[in-house]
Order: sequence, then C-alpha cells, then structure tokens
Amino acid sequence: MKLITFGEVMMRLSPQEFKRFAQADLFEVTYGGGEANVALALAQLGISSEHVTAFPDNEFGYAASAYFRKYGVSVDNISYKGKRIGVYFLEKGSSVRASKVVYDREHSAFAELNPADFNWEKILTGATWFHWTGITPAISQNATHALMEGIRVAKSMGLTVSGDITFRKNLWQWGKTVQEVMPGLVKGCDLIICGESEAEEVFGVKINESSANRYEEVARDIVKLYPNIKQVITTKRETINASHNKLGGLLFNGDRLLETKSFDIVPIVDRIGGGDAFAAGFIYASMKGMEDQKKIEFAVAASVLKHTIPGDANLTTVKEVEQLMQGESVGRLVR
Amino acid sequence: MKLITFGEVMMRLSPQEFKRFAQADLFEVTYGGGEANVALALAQLGISSEHVTAFPDNEFGYAASAYFRKYGVSVDNISYKGKRIGVYFLEKGSSVRASKVVYDREHSAFAELNPADFNWEKILTGATWFHWTGITPAISQNATHALMEGIRVAKSMGLTVSGDITFRKNLWQWGKTVQEVMPGLVKGCDLIICGESEAEEVFGVKINESSANRYEEVARDIVKLYPNIKQVITTKRETINASHNKLGGLLFNGDRLLETKSFDIVPIVDRIGGGDAFAAGFIYASMKGMEDQKKIEFAVAASVLKHTIPGDANLTTVKEVEQLMQGESVGRLVR
Amino acid sequence: MKLITFGEVMMRLSPQEFKRFAQADLFEVTYGGGEANVALALAQLGISSEHVTAFPDNEFGYAASAYFRKYGVSVDNISYKGKRIGVYFLEKGSSVRASKVVYDREHSAFAELNPADFNWEKILTGATWFHWTGITPAISQNATHALMEGIRVAKSMGLTVSGDITFRKNLWQWGKTVQEVMPGLVKGCDLIICGESEAEEVFGVKINESSANRYEEVARDIVKLYPNIKQVITTKRETINASHNKLGGLLFNGDRLLETKSFDIVPIVDRIGGGDAFAAGFIYASMKGMEDQKKIEFAVAASVLKHTIPGDANLTTVKEVEQLMQGESVGRLVR
Amino acid sequence: MKLITFGEVMMRLSPQEFKRFAQADLFEVTYGGGEANVALALAQLGISSEHVTAFPDNEFGYAASAYFRKYGVSVDNISYKGKRIGVYFLEKGSSVRASKVVYDREHSAFAELNPADFNWEKILTGATWFHWTGITPAISQNATHALMEGIRVAKSMGLTVSGDITFRKNLWQWGKTVQEVMPGLVKGCDLIICGESEAEEVFGVKINESSANRYEEVARDIVKLYPNIKQVITTKRETINASHNKLGGLLFNGDRLLETKSFDIVPIVDRIGGGDAFAAGFIYASMKGMEDQKKIEFAVAASVLKHTIPGDANLTTVKEVEQLMQGESVGRLVR
Amino acid sequence: MKLITFGEVMMRLSPQEFKRFAQADLFEVTYGGGEANVALALAQLGISSEHVTAFPDNEFGYAASAYFRKYGVSVDNISYKGKRIGVYFLEKGSSVRASKVVYDREHSAFAELNPADFNWEKILTGATWFHWTGITPAISQNATHALMEGIRVAKSMGLTVSGDITFRKNLWQWGKTVQEVMPGLVKGCDLIICGESEAEEVFGVKINESSANRYEEVARDIVKLYPNIKQVITTKRETINASHNKLGGLLFNGDRLLETKSFDIVPIVDRIGGGDAFAAGFIYASMKGMEDQKKIEFAVAASVLKHTIPGDANLTTVKEVEQLMQGESVGRLVR
Amino acid sequence: MKLITFGEVMMRLSPQEFKRFAQADLFEVTYGGGEANVALALAQLGISSEHVTAFPDNEFGYAASAYFRKYGVSVDNISYKGKRIGVYFLEKGSSVRASKVVYDREHSAFAELNPADFNWEKILTGATWFHWTGITPAISQNATHALMEGIRVAKSMGLTVSGDITFRKNLWQWGKTVQEVMPGLVKGCDLIICGESEAEEVFGVKINESSANRYEEVARDIVKLYPNIKQVITTKRETINASHNKLGGLLFNGDRLLETKSFDIVPIVDRIGGGDAFAAGFIYASMKGMEDQKKIEFAVAASVLKHTIPGDANLTTVKEVEQLMQGESVGRLVR
Repeated sequence: MKLITFGEVMMRLSPQEFKRFAQADLFEVTYGGGEANVALALAQLGISSEHVTAFPDNEFGYAASAYFRKYGVSVDNISYKGKRIGVYFLEKGSSVRASKVVYDREHSAFAELNPADFNWEKILTGATWFHWTGITPAISQNATHALMEGIRVAKSMGLTVSGDITFRKNLWQWGKTVQEVMPGLVKGCDLIICGESEAEEVFGVKINESSANRYEEVARDIVKLYPNIKQVITTKRETINASHNKLGGLLFNGDRLLETKSFDIVPIVDRIGGGDAFAAGFIYASMKGMEDQKKIEFAVAASVLKHTIPGDANLTTVKEVEQLMQGESVGRLVR
Repeated sequence: MKLITFGEVMMRLSPQEFKRFAQADLFEVTYGGGEANVALALAQLGISSEHVTAFPDNEFGYAASAYFRKYGVSVDNISYKGKRIGVYFLEKGSSVRASKVVYDREHSAFAELNPADFNWEKILTGATWFHWTGITPAISQNATHALMEGIRVAKSMGLTVSGDITFRKNLWQWGKTVQEVMPGLVKGCDLIICGESEAEEVFGVKINESSANRYEEVARDIVKLYPNIKQVITTKRETINASHNKLGGLLFNGDRLLETKSFDIVPIVDRIGGGDAFAAGFIYASMKGMEDQKKIEFAVAASVLKHTIPGDANLTTVKEVEQLMQGESVGRLVR
Repeated sequence: MKLITFGEVMMRLSPQEFKRFAQADLFEVTYGGGEANVALALAQLGISSEHVTAFPDNEFGYAASAYFRKYGVSVDNISYKGKRIGVYFLEKGSSVRASKVVYDREHSAFAELNPADFNWEKILTGATWFHWTGITPAISQNATHALMEGIRVAKSMGLTVSGDITFRKNLWQWGKTVQEVMPGLVKGCDLIICGESEAEEVFGVKINESSANRYEEVARDIVKLYPNIKQVITTKRETINASHNKLGGLLFNGDRLLETKSFDIVPIVDRIGGGDAFAAGFIYASMKGMEDQKKIEFAVAASVLKHTIPGDANLTTVKEVEQLMQGESVGRLVR
Repeated sequence: MKLITFGEVMMRLSPQEFKRFAQADLFEVTYGGGEANVALALAQLGISSEHVTAFPDNEFGYAASAYFRKYGVSVDNISYKGKRIGVYFLEKGSSVRASKVVYDREHSAFAELNPADFNWEKILTGATWFHWTGITPAISQNATHALMEGIRVAKSMGLTVSGDITFRKNLWQWGKTVQEVMPGLVKGCDLIICGESEAEEVFGVKINESSANRYEEVARDIVKLYPNIKQVITTKRETINASHNKLGGLLFNGDRLLETKSFDIVPIVDRIGGGDAFAAGFIYASMKGMEDQKKIEFAVAASVLKHTIPGDANLTTVKEVEQLMQGESVGRLVR
Repeated sequence: MKLITFGEVMMRLSPQEFKRFAQADLFEVTYGGGEANVALALAQLGISSEHVTAFPDNEFGYAASAYFRKYGVSVDNISYKGKRIGVYFLEKGSSVRASKVVYDREHSAFAELNPADFNWEKILTGATWFHWTGITPAISQNATHALMEGIRVAKSMGLTVSGDITFRKNLWQWGKTVQEVMPGLVKGCDLIICGESEAEEVFGVKINESSANRYEEVARDIVKLYPNIKQVITTKRETINASHNKLGGLLFNGDRLLETKSFDIVPIVDRIGGGDAFAAGFIYASMKGMEDQKKIEFAVAASVLKHTIPGDANLTTVKEVEQLMQGESVGRLVR
Repeated sequence: MKLITFGEVMMRLSPQEFKRFAQADLFEVTYGGGEANVALALAQLGISSEHVTAFPDNEFGYAASAYFRKYGVSVDNISYKGKRIGVYFLEKGSSVRASKVVYDREHSAFAELNPADFNWEKILTGATWFHWTGITPAISQNATHALMEGIRVAKSMGLTVSGDITFRKNLWQWGKTVQEVMPGLVKGCDLIICGESEAEEVFGVKINESSANRYEEVARDIVKLYPNIKQVITTKRETINASHNKLGGLLFNGDRLLETKSFDIVPIVDRIGGGDAFAAGFIYASMKGMEDQKKIEFAVAASVLKHTIPGDANLTTVKEVEQLMQGESVGRLVR
C-alpha cells in the first residue's frame, strides 16, 4: 500500500502562543499543505507515502522537502523550479478571538508549475491510492492540468482516488470557475470529502433546509451525479469558540449514512489541518479494510487528536487513534 | 475626534507562560497603564489619541514612548524628568491559582512629576475627549494637581471628560483620602466608570444589599450627588477561576439601566487591561454616536476580546468587536 | 519539625508547550522525584526539610542538588558516586491527547547506591518525620536495603514515618516482588498513601466492587493487616481528559472515612507531582496538628494548586492553600 | 530640518543566532529597507524624518508601519494597496561562512504602486532633505516614475537631494537598464553615494586600475558628468571575513578627496544596513553643518556602530557616534 | 574557613544577546552584587560562604535568596524588610559599542536597612574572613553604619578583612563624602583592592604620572597611611573594545610589587563581575596559603574565566582556574 | 556512488549560548555521531548516503532517525531494539574556557546491539564506500563484531573502506585493548584518518620528536605495517583558545606528504564534528576523483566551514566549500 498526494506546500509563519501579528518578534516556521499533510499523517500511521509538488530551487524549497522527509514522506518526484514558495501567516486565536490566516501564495513555484515536469506513470508506479484537494485546481490553470493528468493516470493504473473538495471561493482567480472544473476531476474519484454547502456551491446540489436527513440526501445526489463516487464523507464541526470545538463525522457509503459520536476538543492547540487528518484517517482505515463504521470513527478520532498538536501535521500513531476510539483512559498520563 | 489620556505608564515584567516568579529566567517586557491602555485601544479602533505622562529621561522612558508610538498613540507632550519608570511584575495564574501583581512604582517620574510641565491648553487643543482614572490622584499630590488642572481645562474647552474611579486603597499614601479628593475630580466629568463597592467607599453611597435594582439605585445616587455626570457604567465580572470569567456590562444613562448579556471567557490569555478595554470601547461607541444599548454592548465585547490578547493593550479592530457583538462565527477560523 | 525524604531524583526533559517529542528543538530541564518533591513542597510551606539520595559525581548531580537547595531543601547527606543521573522525558498532552513519560533511569547512581553510604542515625538526628515511596524498593536491592534501614532507624528514633505505596509494576525487575518486599516496609509506617487497586495488588486486599463504602473497607483491611498504620489516605482523581481532572481526597483515620469535595482543575498546566503535593500537604497539616478533616482538605487543595504550576514541584505557600480551602476569591487577580 | 525617504520596506526573516535556514524552527521578524533605514537612523539622531512607501492593506503593512513609528519615523503618507509585502530571508554567517540573503520581493505592493498615490507637493512641504536609493528604480517602472516625480518636486521645492546608487544587477528586470534610467535621477541630486565599480557600471566612468588616486578621479568624472552633484561619497570596506570587516570612508567634495581612518569591526553582530547607516550619518552631519572632514568621519563612525546592533536599523545616538569619533573609551562599560 | 560578605544584591535585567534596550521583548533575569558575587564564587571554589544583606519581604527578595542558595551561598542572616529590591539593567555591548548599565537602585531595602537587624557577633561566629566593597558606604548612612559595625566586630573577632574600594562618584548622595567615610572603614582592613585613580580620589595619594613604578609607589603610600593594610591589589585592564580586553593583576605585598602576565579575553561573554571574581580568587588563594605570586595569578585567572560566563557570578572550579594558570590546553575541548 | 556509515548516534543536549550546565533551563536537542555526521555531510554534498545503527524502539530512536532522514540520509537498515539512546551533554566554551562534553552513553541500544541484526550483504548492495570510526570498537564486543563483519563484507564486495582511528582511551572498557582490536579492522581499510599520537598509542609507531618530517614518517610506518592502506590523512589543528583555532590538513598518499594552508577560524560557532566534516570532505573529493592536493584542500575547507555551523553536522554545499578553497570573497555577504 502506498499513497501519493499532489498539491501545494506553503511555509507557515505564526507568532508564538497567542500573540497578534503586530506583537511578534519571532515567527514559528513550519511547512504544510492540504494534501502533503495527508501524506505525512499516513506516514505516521505506518503507510508508505509520497508527496508530489513544485518547489522553488532555493533554500526554502529544500527546507520544505527536508521537513516532509523528516516525517517519513518520500519527496523524490518534486519539481524544483520557479521563484518562490507560497507563504501563509497564522495568528492563533483563543476563546472568542478567531485564529486568522493571511495568505501570500501567488506566483509560487506550484502556481506556476509546468505540468510536463510530472511523469505520472513513473510517479504512480507501485502506488495504490492517489489523493488531491480542491485547492489545487483553484490555484492556476497549470496546476489544474497537472492534477487532471494525475487523476487520469491514477485511474488508468487502477489506484483508488480520493478528492477533498475544499472550496475556497476567493482562490479561484485564473479564469475558469469551480463549477466548470470540478466535474472533470471528481469523475475520476472513488471517494470525496464534501460538506453540505460545498455540495451546493460546487455541484449545484439542492439543500432541503428543513430535512432531518439533509446530509444523506446531499450525498445521494452527488452519487447520482457521479456514480463513480462510492463514498461521500464529511466532518461535522460545531465551533463553540476558537478554543473549543465539537467534532464528529458522517459517511454515506452509497447505501446509508453512518455517523459517529461527537468529541469535545478543548482546548484546541492548533486548528489547522483538522480536515486533512480526517482524510488521512479515512484513507488509512480504508486501506486496512476496516468496516465502514470503523472507518469514519477512525477518521474522526485521528482528526480530534490533530487539534492537540502544534503545526499542520497529525503526528499520531495508530495506537493513539485506536485508544481514543475505544475511549480508553482519555488523557490519562501514559508512563 | 481625538482622545487625550493622562496617567502613569509602568514597565510590566512577567515570567513566560505560567511560571511562578522564582522559576523565571526571563521576563516578558511590555508597558502599560490604566489610561494609556485606553488611548492605545482607541488608536486601534481608528481614533486619534494621545497619552500624556511623565517619564524618566532615560532608555526606559524612551522605550515606553516608543511602545505607545508603535501602536499609533501620540506621545508629543510627555515630560522627561525624574529618576525611574514605575515597574509592575505580573505572574500569570491559571485555573484555581490567581494571577498576581507586585508593584514597584514608588518614586517614579510620574509620582514626582511637576504639574507646571503640562500646558493643558496646548495639549488639549484639537481634542474632544479627556479620560483619567482614580490611580492618578492616589499616587501623589503632584499627580493630583496636574490631573485637576487637566480636567478643569478640558471642561473649559468643551471636551467630554470621563473618569474611571478605580479605587485602590493601598495606593492612597500621600496625605489626603480618596473621599477628600475624588469629588473635586468627578465634578468635571460627564461619565464615570464606577462599581458598586467603589460607589460606597469613594462616594459614600449606601448599598441596599437586598435590592434587585441595586446598581441602578447606586448609579442614581451618584448622579444625584454629581448632576454633571450623565452616565455611570461598570463591568459585571464573575470570576469562575483565573482561566474562566464571565463578563457583562451595565450602563445607567441618567434615565434607566441598560444591561448586556454575559460572555464566557475561557481560557483567559491575559487578565490585565480588561477594564481599560471596556472604557475604551465605551468611549469609541460614544464618539461614534451609537445608541446607548449598543454603546455598552460595544464596550463589553471589546473588553471580552482583550482577555484573549497578551499584554495590557487591547489590539482589536472595530470589525472584530462588531463581529463578536453580532455573535457571528465566534472563534471560527478566518481565512 | 523537620522532614527527611529519601529517594531517586531524575533530570526531567520536556518539549516546550504541547510539542511532541519529535518536534522538539529544545527541552525544558528541571529535576524531580516522588520523595524529593515532597521535601521541596514542605520547604515552601515553611517546614525544614532535607532530601537524601545518591547522585553521580558530575555536573548533573551538582545541578540537581543546586535545584533543591534553591528551593530551600537541605542536601547535606547526598552520596556522590556512580555513573549517571536517571532521566525522564515528559511530553505534555492536551485535551484528548495524554501526557507521556519515557523513562531512562536504569543504572543510575541511585539504583546502584551503596547502603553503607547513608548514616541514618546522623541523618535523622533532629528530624521528626521520614517519608518514602514505593518507587525506591522497586528500583534495586541496594535501594531497598538503604530504605529499610532508614525506616528502621527512623522508627527507633521516634519519627513519624509515611509511605506512598505508588506501585509501578514495570519497575520491579531486580528479583523480588512488591508483595515480598512491601510488608517489611509498611510495618514501620504510621501513615500510608494507597489507592484501591494498589491495596489489592500490593497487599492482597479484596475489593468489593459493588460496595458503596469500598475505600473505607479497603483501608480498614490494611489497618487490620498492619495495625501500626494509623491513617490511610488517597486522592480521588477523575480524568475528564489531559487538560481537565477532578480531584478530591479520602482519609481513613482508623475510625471512619473523611472525604473532601472535588475540585475541577482546568486547564492543567502540569500533571506531574500532583500526588507528591498531596502527600506533602497531608504531612504539613499533620505536623501543624490540624484536625483530620482539615488535614485531608489541606492535602487536596495543595495538590490542586500543584496542577497549575510548571515542573514537578509544588511552589505554593500556606496562605495560597488556605485561601483555596476557604474558597476565597478563587483565581481573582491579586494585587 | 526634516528628512523624507522613499523606497520599499521588506519583512526580514532570519534564523536565530548562526543557524542555517534548514535548521530554523523560529525566524526573527523585523522590517527594513535601504531608504527607510536612513529615516529611522536620523530619527534616532534627533532629526524629524518620514518614510514614504506603499504597503499592502493587511496586517503586515500595518505592522511594518508600526515598526517605523515605534522608532520615531512618520508614516503618514503611505499608500496601503496591493497584495503583499516583500520579504527577505537572512542567514547570519560567521567567520569564513558568509551571511546570505534570499529575496522574495516580486509583486510587492511597492513594486506595483500607483505613482498617482503620492502627492509630492504635500508630502515634501516642511521637509529639507530627500533621500532615495538605486533599489527603487530597479524594482519596476511604476516605482521609477514615482521616484522621478519625487526628485523633481523636491528639487523644485529647494530640498537637498541625495541618492545612494546601490546597483544590484539582478534586480533590473522591468525593461529599462540602469544606464537608461539613472542619469535622469542623479541630475536632481546634490549628493550621491557611489562606489568605484558602481561608477563604472552605472555611469560608464573609466577606472584607472593603476592609479593611486583612483576614487578621486572617479568622483571627479562623475561631477563632470553631473555638475549638480556637489559631493560623492563611499565607504571603503575590507572584508576579512563574515565576522570581521574594516571600514572607512571617502568624500570627494568637488574640490578634493577626504578620507577617514579605518575601524576594525569584530565581531560583526549584524551586517545589514551598514551602508544605510553611513548615508544617514552623512546626512545628519550635513544638516548640522559640520565641516567636510567631520561629515565623513561621522558617517563612518555611525556605520561602524550599526554593525554591532541586530536588525537593519542603526539605533545609535549622536553622543555614541561622537564618542566613537573621539576614540573615547571605545567599548568601556558605561554605568 | 568561612567567608562572610555584606552588601546590596540587585535584580539584573538584560536584553538577550546584543539587543539594545528598546528592541527587547524579553529580559534575562538574574541577581548579583559586588559582595555577593564574591561569596558565590568562593562557594564554587569549595569554600563555605555566606552573604548578608537586606531584601524586601516579597517574591523578589525570596527569589534573590533562592538564587544564592542554589549556588551554595548561605543566606540565613538576611533581613527581609523594606519596599523593593534594587534593579540594574544591562545592555550587552559588542566591539566598538560599549555595554551599558542603567541603575534603578534608590529606596531599595538595602539602602533603607536598619543596622540593628544585623547581629554581627552571631553572624560572624565561625567565620574567618569578612569582605566588603565601597558600594555599600556610598548607598546610605544606614548601610554605612551597618558596614562599620560589621568591620569592627570582624576585626575584634580576629577575622581577616578585605575591602574593594570601588569608587563610584555618582552614588555618593547621602551627605558624607567618600573621603570622610572611607578611612574609618579601611582602618579595619588587612587587604584592599584599589586602583590608581581610586587611590588618588579616595585617599588623596599623589600619582607620579611619569614614574615607571607608579602602582608600587601608590600602594606604598596607602600602606604608609594605613599600616594595618598588608596587601594592596588591583587588576590591570586594557580595554581594546567591548569584546576584547586584556587582563592582568598587581599585588603589593608590603614589600614589593608582584605582577602577572596579561591574558587576552576575546570574545567577552559577560563583562560584569570581573572584579568580583578577581577578589574572590585572591581570597581563595590567601585562605589556601598560596605564596604571593600564585595568589595574584590565581586571582587573575579566575577573573579571566569569569568573562566567559553569562551573569554576574563566576561559576568556575579550582581545577579550571589552575588549568588556565598552567596554560594547559587553553580552550581545548574537554571530554 | 553511495556511502554507508556504521556507528552510534547519540542525543546531544546543550545549554543555549555560553551558559554553564547548572545555569540551563533549556537544552538544545540534536543528534549526532562520528560516523552518521559523515553520512549527513555527504548527503549535503549531493552524495547518496545511508547510516546504519541500532536505536531503542522508542520515541527517541524514531526522532533520531527522523533527524537524519530530514537531511537526506537513508535510515532503512536500522535495528530498533534495546533500552536507550546514548546521550551526550555539551557545554559550549568561549575564549579561555573550554567546551565540555559529558557522556551518558553506557547501556545504549548501540552498545548492546545484536550483530546478527545487520545483514551486510543486503545493506552494502549498491554502495561504493564504507566508513567507520574507532569509537565503535571501543564501545562493546558486540559493536566490534558487527563492525568487523561490515568491513569484511564491504571489502569482499569491492567497496572502498575508510576508518577514522579516533582513539578515546577511557571508552575502552569491554575487555580487549585498542591494540588487540584495531589491527583486525584497519587491515580492511584503504584510507585511515590518524593523528600522530594515535599512531603511537594505537599502532605503536615511534615518533621522532626532533624530526621535521614527523608526520610523513609516521604515515610511512603505518603504510608499512598495513600495506592495504593507501592514504593516511589528518587535520593539523592549533587551538589558540575555545573561540579561535587554526586548521590545516595533511595527506600522505603512499608516496609523499601533501599539505594545505592553515585557516583561522574565529569565532568558532560549534567545535563538535570538525573531524567528521574533514573525513566527509575527503571522501567526497575522492569519490569525485579530484587530484590528491585538491582532496585534502577540500577536506580542510569543509571542516573549516563546519566550525561555523551549530550542531554536529556539516550543512554545507559543494559550492560553499569550493568558494572557500578558492578564497573567493571569504565571508562577503551573498545576495
């Protein structure tokens, strides 16, 4: 089993503790991206994984590669070209004050990548799963082309393909709309991660606000539109405040909706990467052939643990996820 | 619109995180004072503001000025004289352990200021609001004289004057009592911030412990004593513990009592300056001509946000305060 | 009144804030041990105390001694020999993620101590109380022999002796079992700290799972087995998660069971040393001749405060503990 | 006397101490730019100064403004527009290992500024000196146009104009060459800072390698080409290694060459901004009407001190510069 | 052998690395004083030592005591009274930029001590050496009285008494001059540390600027004035710059002048406390009965090592000093 | 070309900056070992490399692996077993104060490795060079056996084998002497790194103290004893003090002695790993087929650069080494 992910990696800069941007004399530096975070999480769970991306041919491209290599992600098919690594600034919120992200990602090596630099047949050889997110097609035409080709080849080589829709309206600036682009991508997918409002905005699915089975209906509609999609999943997040969220998950397996209990996460150490940890957890559980209810439970427990770890990445082990799923001694000191 | 504040600024030294004083190898350094914090908060809200004080003519007087200048507060009428800057040490508490403040402020440049150094006519030209607190008259006779003159001139020039009573019994050491001094000061005020027990101790207002309308009665009594006072406001704080407070506000507008809902603040990042943020919020809302209910709601929301920010100062924008007032996505990640 | 404690002290290394081990570029360094923590806590409460141990004759033995000397613990009877100081690594958990301890304590100077290096008659002269824990006999035969002799001499010199059973199964590797060794130790004790499951595992006491008076029955059985034991105490901890525990205490005074209310501790700043703070609180209250109910309340309040302080040690004063017992302004800013 | 500077300000990110980029978990954050550094240095020397630039309308534009305001530089005529603040990464070298700068400044708010946003008549009212550097015309056509207009208006309003040639070949990407653009700019200047190789590359001045009076000849040639230029200055830097430089200065005053002694700077705390400190020192000395020899000595001493201070900015006072010029107790502890 | 020192201890606050005061967000905190530093250094050299002082009865008085206790100095006769601990701020210089000290020590507990709080007979029992500096009589009349009595009792009990003249002109504000006070103090001394200019200013000794034997003549004159003084010593410091000093020592033993070689110290890690380390080294060597040449060599080597250690205190061992004296592998890695 | 190294990796803990051990509240954490450092350096130079070792099967074994993986070293053949990772503590010296290393490496997973866990045929497949040091045979019999087998197989598979003699007398505790063990190891080597005194102590080579060609004679004698050795190299280090070393290199190529110029390194940022960087540089130059004089020059320049980089590892590129060799702009700011 081997996972390949493809997408942008950014340098993440954040003031220490709860300082606001203007107060900071120091920024914590790490690296992350919605797809690479999935690869990294799977490496921690013991699955062979590789991330494919484009980095500038400079110290920060190398440092970002080194970061992923450190955590066991292969980085052998990265294109080193272009001018800069995208950057995002994160101000960690607390209680009623929200965390805040400021992006500086335009003109990045990834946005300006050359699709010809990625030999997907070679890259995907030996792999069993390909994962992407909706950030990539939002960034640029070139990124979209590379992704399309990746999905096409993955499909043709028999890999399972999963896509996290992640619709960020303000990113879509390169000419085409999400509605024009996304269908071509999800047609190659076996699994998508898609929330209610994303289903509406991206796929035009109608939401029946008064229905008790809303998500199931939405998911059914998606599967009707794209019969290749066998599973539709999403997290169910309730934001009490920046330090306290409740988190559960939903899985429509083509047949029925499975649901998990909701976990209280308080305090939240790091809000970023929760969705990526969820995706990674679901992919792991699927690779290991867990039954459907366990899959979505594993995904949720993995995501919950992510919120307790600084940085984008979910540095948790299978054992830790399973203990949380079993409710064993939650948070009891381990000696 | 321009606000002038007058009062002492101290260097604040605090161990990192939750270390006790004896554990600290490093102290975080910042600067603050009950009045200057108000000027700083208003500068963040987009209002022109200036702080007037006395600093020693040394590196720490300059550094303190630089701190306020950084955050947009004018510091053009500061007297640089005297020997030292007052210092306060803050040990941040958590849960059942209280935060602790140790003062080392005696003999500061401010305590020993020369009232003649402040040309109030010049200072207040162009300003529309003057704000002071009860700390200043507690510090020394000289500080009291300078403040009295400031209030007198402000009144004569038509500024709105607000005073935060802030009675700290142990500060009053220079000869006169708060009961002797305060009436002369509040007679020049349009607005005061005054809690129940302060009303009793400072103004001799009787508290009817069994009354349900206690604060309204207290405020009415104050207004009876000082008819120049048009509004009396206070925060309503419930201390669950050092990490968790509930905070609301009360406004007596001369006619009736207006009240806000109470916010849970948990965890508290920094307890200092909550009252100053409340005052600043109310002044802003008044300057902008909000209606009374909005004024007190704005003040409370601003104060609540302050508790999530390290340091004395409320580094929040109008937009952030309004979002909290409207309960929009409290603490939801902002991208 | 003077307390003597005997036991291993380890260097404690922990990543800053909530970083996982692999993320750490810096480890916070401090020193601690289940018995030395008790001596240190009592020194903060104003009681003369001394810790006896074996350290390597190197910089880290000296640094550990210096650490305890800083906080007022006498270290005049330490044996400096052997090769290394034991180390433990602590990863601080949060919310659903548990804190994690990794030990590297084998072959430490303490494990390989020479019992002849401790002249107990001299060491205990002037002392009134001797305290030990079940960690010591678990470490090695030599440590057990030294402890046995310490207890014997303490008893013969009329000191009060307390033992914290602290059964850690995986530590017992040197040949004898806890069941073989412990009886010889508790026979010299006036007071033991012992949880339900420890009573079962160590002393073979039967637990009646369905009984409402379970702990009282257990304690009675212990006292029946060892009539020298006059009091049996334990904390009652409920682990909501790594950031939130509830803590109360139980005291069987030979006659009846006394119980305290339960405190919510949230957030927990440092989970380590809570039990040691409880022991120290009880010893202090006993030394001061408090009545039984106050003793156990003092012990619990002291332990609760410990959870708010970084490091192993309970750096709290009598005044702070008493304020918490009295519920005075819990967590209200102290100026 | 008041100085106006115009140019780009970048966020500066650097690993702590001597860490290489890939080792860094933290970046120190500050702000700087070749022109703004001059304004900041003059503010420390007691001269009123203002920096004019374009920042993005986001947290980092505001934070950069706050940084300069802190150190006394007016920032009242900044244009807040565009998408990003330029960034430069600095790796501090030591001994044989050079410091290294990586730029990420393309597409910055400054590069994409709108010349119409700068009302030079208004900006320059009350000012006596205008300073620019050769970085600005290298960045973009828009920046060049804004600068040209600034110089033109400054000249017309009777300000003294100084330009630091600072030729960075790889920056010139927008279409015109330095040789095409620079003459138009220096024609408005009274003073330029220009090294030998810059004179050759930018102005086509021939260097007589074998001449002992090389710099004087070069300067004379420049003055012949641009008779408006009354003074040509440069630093004379000898790089022993990254920790040890020798620094002196040369001034051609239209008549003859004046030279200073050379200072050993070892260790160098921060290499960045040495040239800007030199320019600022010369401007200060000129404003104060020092005689020519003192001017260049003041400039060199100011620059030497800069090398001992972390960050881009020269945080030194007139007194400190003068003490160094006089060789008084160089480096003797000041109490 | 036991040393008693008496004098003020201050909290020392300094920016990290080479930051200037206004740049600092963090201050490093430690404690030191000219006399206490000597006690601490001797404790590291294996000599029993105790420091006597007055501290405020607050957290910072206790923290300062804890600091000295940590490093093995007894603090059993400290008076806890008064309002504040003196503070000094240190900005570390580098190269041509000097280190800078700003004092905030007025009204400290020590300055306002009550001489009656020090029972010198009790304090000095068991001691063999008493050491003081000229800072103490400069601070206040009360401090002078306490010191006078300390010297008197020490003398009467047969202790060796040493005084470090340390003349700081600007400290003498309480009414009497150094010339009035000092004779009464040095009359009780066996040894003084006194530089050439101090001899002139304090004792009125004439300096023959053209003499090659200047220091010997000065020392002889002192011994003539105060025949009780058997030895006069001083460091011979040449300040190349803030990072590079040369240091040697001179000892006049009543008979002749002994001199040491001069050590280059580069880079200087911490300039503070060099003189105190010299005094401590000389006292140690005297206590151990070294011959005169070794005494002054030991003192110099100890002082040289101090310059490589952060903080006021000389944390070096006898072995380290001796290795430096013997020139063994200076600075060669020790495994 | 691919390098395999085999040897122990330790956790390195060091106080920040120049703090002594007892002053440290924080330890910097990194990982290193004499052989692994070589692999890491070669990875930076662009050569495929792998390190083989034994780690405990715990967080610190994984973290150490992650560290090497980050910097591009393969870690696919590590044995995860045993109880602990060896630790070394480093106190960085300055000027006359030496850096100090305290080891805590006994009973490490490496010391107690099982030779059968290393399948050398598999490990060495595809490799071209095998490198070891004299630390490994000093540690334990098991480590020696594993190394012997590694050398034997490497030789049989045609790899080049290099050994760094590195004789540390106090490490040899397991029963055999270095004189008994080393011959068996060097018989499989093509290249050794061996200083004069090591040649005498380990190989019994006689040193003619008065000879000008001493090192050449020593090297010739070694080659006579072990004709398989084609090259003998060593660094020539002169320790001015802990902050200033001079470093050159010597190469005996079987025919004649080649020598490099000596570099001044001042200040030294990190003294550890200089020899390993030298070895790595020589291996790189050999792999690239440089001529002999260039080989030793490359090795020296690489080692010199290492001294400017914090940590054990030489994070330098080929370009940086070559620039230093060519004396191009040593330490000139790179933009």
